[in-house]
Amino acid sequence: MNKLVLATDLGGTNLRVAAVDRDGKILYRTKYETPKSERADEIFRVITQAARKCQEAVEKNGKIIAVGAAVPATVNAADGIILKAPNLPALDGVRFSAAISGELNLPVILENDANSAAIGEHWRGASNGFDNSICVTLGTGVGGGIILSGEILRGVDGTAGEIGHICVEPFGAPCGCGSRGCVEQYSSATAIVRIVQELKNQYPQSLLFEKLFKKTHCTSLDVYEAGKAGDELALEAFRQMGFYLGIALADLVNVLNPEVIVIGGGAAAGWDLFIHHVRNQIYSHAFREPAERAKLLRAKLGDDAGILGAARLAFNLSLIG
Amino acid sequence: MNKLVLATDLGGTNLRVAAVDRDGKILYRTKYETPKSERADEIFRVITQAARKCQEAVEKNGKIIAVGAAVPATVNAADGIILKAPNLPALDGVRFSAAISGELNLPVILENDANSAAIGEHWRGASNGFDNSICVTLGTGVGGGIILSGEILRGVDGTAGEIGHICVEPFGAPCGCGSRGCVEQYSSATAIVRIVQELKNQYPQSLLFEKLFKKTHCTSLDVYEAGKAGDELALEAFRQMGFYLGIALADLVNVLNPEVIVIGGGAAAGWDLFIHHVRNQIYSHAFREPAERAKLLRAKLGDDAGILGAARLAFNLSLIG
Repeated sequence: MNKLVLATDLGGTNLRVAAVDRDGKILYRTKYETPKSERADEIFRVITQAARKCQEAVEKNGKIIAVGAAVPATVNAADGIILKAPNLPALDGVRFSAAISGELNLPVILENDANSAAIGEHWRGASNGFDNSICVTLGTGVGGGIILSGEILRGVDGTAGEIGHICVEPFGAPCGCGSRGCVEQYSSATAIVRIVQELKNQYPQSLLFEKLFKKTHCTSLDVYEAGKAGDELALEAFRQMGFYLGIALADLVNVLNPEVIVIGGGAAAGWDLFIHHVRNQIYSHAFREPAERAKLLRAKLGDDAGILGAARLAFNLSLIG
Repeated sequence: MNKLVLATDLGGTNLRVAAVDRDGKILYRTKYETPKSERADEIFRVITQAARKCQEAVEKNGKIIAVGAAVPATVNAADGIILKAPNLPALDGVRFSAAISGELNLPVILENDANSAAIGEHWRGASNGFDNSICVTLGTGVGGGIILSGEILRGVDGTAGEIGHICVEPFGAPCGCGSRGCVEQYSSATAIVRIVQELKNQYPQSLLFEKLFKKTHCTSLDVYEAGKAGDELALEAFRQMGFYLGIALADLVNVLNPEVIVIGGGAAAGWDLFIHHVRNQIYSHAFREPAERAKLLRAKLGDDAGILGAARLAFNLSLIG
């Protein structure tokens, strides 16, 4: 019988669960709102509910053999424990794998969401075939996952890969992490909007001007669209965003000498407006040989990267278990 | 019979060769000036001469089974080829291992000098027992070697570990590598002297003042001694040096989550004047958990780190070959 896994991607807003086959094909998927609860068991209840729904939907396609879970947290993957989940503090310190495994009677593997996305892109996405790769996700924040010799880099406590908190301005903008000048403050989707807000008075002709002053919601996609239309404020925002992202990636090129850097997340939509700035900074700041080696590729899997990474880990788990 | 290896550490100024036993004990050592030749075979001649001298000296102690060579260059370790040696351009592109192996009739393993130092400290020095460690050498430049899961990180082309060229000031001082704002420009022994030169006019009472204005040679050790005596210019130089080193190491703490960071090289002599600044910046810039995890340790092996790392690699080679 065909072997399948369940993969869940728990975000601050949505919980997505899917049934995935060995080729990375998503056979069924469902999406729930992440409960705004202070109780972990309420979150577990929604996860198991979604998982059972998937299980029923693919009953005739094969047998579910394991569960992979991507969570927005640092994790102890070996013991299945969530260490710290900044946006879902109810989960701090919980034995996630044991709880879900107890409900579903399946082995469960836990992973950080950015690491899962890197594993997903490596399995079925842009970095497939490249065993030394870096995956950067430009969303609300800047997430990162590093694959070396085909394995995700976890570090001693599972906290490795925090690319978004490389310091690119020692006296720069304060960051939610407690530091300042993190690349997340310059190159996330959030940062692009902040940059146009900060610079708007210098660009009274900007297409974004009305939107920014009327304080209607302005997104990084609005900035991208203005930039495509030649708006100078928008182009300057993407220049700054690419400049700083390039500095952080140049550091990684010098330190890790990777084959591939995959860039995804909402702000990657602005690719054609920022990628040449990123490339210029990598060439300016990194050594020539590793700079020439590191291919810059756009992520392929979109929102499914985390799900597919979790699925991959679940299949790996079933090989061991 | 007791198995021994020869280990060579080729620097821009000196070539050091030693015979080393399986416990990392140096049984004999010799030092030559590095030939200022434009011909690689002249350098090879001095290396083999030094190697034969060591071989004869330990003839009665055991049998030499392999050679490990640390070189100031990026290398293709698998093929024994020097890729680029910025301070010894005669060696660019040469088949180092084949040449030395042909002369000495022994297997030869080649490694970058900073990587060798990291391996040496891991085998017999400060990071012994820690399989995830970073080794930083503060000399003329800032060198680096990274050990993950007990293995040196080489990257795809053998250029990984260039910690000295992490950017800590995006619009900062120009660096010899072609970039600007590299930590090497702020935290090397050379940089400490440059910082006091730049700041001297603000500190007319400095103990270093006469030395700096008479332009007699001022070294980082002079700055350290002035700092120990309470000199404010010297203390400010070490504050800046520690501040920027801390930012670069905080990046590595966030990205790699290591157990140990070993700091060596000439400027590490100023340890008690800069290490609290380094620690403060790591705590300010990195996430709490990996910041608390990363022990800062002073290198133990001094100038022998490279030799012992090369020796370790030679013993490993003999296990495989």
